[in-house]
Amino acid sequence: MDFTEESATPAVVESFAGTPDPRLREILGSLTRHLHDFIREVEPTMEEWEWGVDFLTRTGQKCDDTRQEFILLSDVLGVSMLVETINQRKAAGTAGEPVTDSTVLGPFHMVDSPERAFGDSIDMMGTGQPCVVTGRVLSVDGTPLAGAMVDVWQADDNGFYDVQQPGAQPQGNGRGLFTTDEEGRFRFSTVVPAHYPIPTDGPVGELLGATERHPYRPAHIHFIAGHTGFQPVTTHIFVEDSAYLDSDAVFAVKKSLVQTFTEVDDAALAAEYGVKAPFRLAGFDIVLRPS
Amino acid sequence: MDFTEESATPAVVESFAGTPDPRLREILGSLTRHLHDFIREVEPTMEEWEWGVDFLTRTGQKCDDTRQEFILLSDVLGVSMLVETINQRKAAGTAGEPVTDSTVLGPFHMVDSPERAFGDSIDMMGTGQPCVVTGRVLSVDGTPLAGAMVDVWQADDNGFYDVQQPGAQPQGNGRGLFTTDEEGRFRFSTVVPAHYPIPTDGPVGELLGATERHPYRPAHIHFIAGHTGFQPVTTHIFVEDSAYLDSDAVFAVKKSLVQTFTEVDDAALAAEYGVKAPFRLAGFDIVLRPS
Repeated sequence: MDFTEESATPAVVESFAGTPDPRLREILGSLTRHLHDFIREVEPTMEEWEWGVDFLTRTGQKCDDTRQEFILLSDVLGVSMLVETINQRKAAGTAGEPVTDSTVLGPFHMVDSPERAFGDSIDMMGTGQPCVVTGRVLSVDGTPLAGAMVDVWQADDNGFYDVQQPGAQPQGNGRGLFTTDEEGRFRFSTVVPAHYPIPTDGPVGELLGATERHPYRPAHIHFIAGHTGFQPVTTHIFVEDSAYLDSDAVFAVKKSLVQTFTEVDDAALAAEYGVKAPFRLAGFDIVLRPS
Repeated sequence: MDFTEESATPAVVESFAGTPDPRLREILGSLTRHLHDFIREVEPTMEEWEWGVDFLTRTGQKCDDTRQEFILLSDVLGVSMLVETINQRKAAGTAGEPVTDSTVLGPFHMVDSPERAFGDSIDMMGTGQPCVVTGRVLSVDGTPLAGAMVDVWQADDNGFYDVQQPGAQPQGNGRGLFTTDEEGRFRFSTVVPAHYPIPTDGPVGELLGATERHPYRPAHIHFIAGHTGFQPVTTHIFVEDSAYLDSDAVFAVKKSLVQTFTEVDDAALAAEYGVKAPFRLAGFDIVLRPS
């Protein structure tokens, strides 16, 4: 019953000793030790502590049905990607299996993608540069997976998702739920996505401003791919020549996910794909691990 | 531009390298390292990460003009006391000076205490056990400090502050702003405070429930003492025979602050103090450091 800088951490860890769930007890013990280590290292003034309390409070109060500011905070601190990457490693049965890398889900997968057929366009606007994405879903042994689900969503050529512009973009623009054919293939046409800023009108935006960090994410297309009997993967492909590829505001870039979007000026191929030449063509095979 | 478990922490720390304020840069670098260490140690599942995001969100959304759930969270994790204790140590010019220990401010110093005269009662109800608190404000060299400010506030004999029961308790009950006399003395009568639970109807209450920690604070009286030319102190005195002295929910007990509330059955002394015998008597000298 004598609180000192030395007794503080063991006292708080001990207070959680009666936690019935051993995993919760482990997490809270670790949280206490690391949080106290942080406090001991920076020795915040009372004003800094009050600033931290206020920042966290405002972060919670910025959240609503369509905005999750704490996920955004986790994103810009690299925590979301770290958790995602740790979980992919833990799911791996064998180290070094050539499965597709995962990356963050992001905040814009809030609506169901409309079902679309092989080769359909997910672009309902027609204003951007045409683009075709083609690939296969495969098992780690190279077997094509027929009937796999491929959910894709992306920002438009101005860097906005449909849900951010409910008046200006039709619902489902930039989204599609595809099923692979008998050879495990999927294909869709779209527009080349643009880089875009994460929302900056909240506490996370303040943090980026105060640290002179830009809020941009490099251009990318989101994917979730899954098949019965396989572990699903949540990932992106990044446009190789996009700005901000070296400084994604949410640290989501993995080298293996950067894809060349090749310029193609071939009228016959364009006609086959249902787009106008010149268009850009990207290929992305998705490799899943049996579950 | 390749995110891995190994590259994550240096990448995020480096992203803050351009922060103009060196103190903010230091704090964010330290936060990133300790937060990532925590994540690497516990390896949260995606579901656990989502639970954490949701917990923090609800903690922010529980806050309003009269409720600060993030301070409560800081309190039950021992962070508030650690920050308070570090700051008292940093303020000390010479180690080992016999100044009065500080402890947490707590959430109930939200209104101004009414000014009261030497010996006045701060109890406006008359239902609890009478109690007299007397003491002096002194400099570290033992010089009494005349004209020092002594702000006191406490819960009533049922464990509630006036601001928690706006109908049942008159405003200012249990509160008083005193000025020391020419010998540095203060004195007030009151009722013996009761132990009480911190608010449990929010996320912090959930946390205490899930960890089978009780929410109680041992009985105490809050003080802020100050004098021109001296560093003010924010502290409590704890009632020596109170329940929960060994397990304060917010870890605020320091041995030096535990005081004997002696039972006195002396009608003459009771009359001098303006209370009824038997009453309890506590002494508390407050030692301030020159600023």
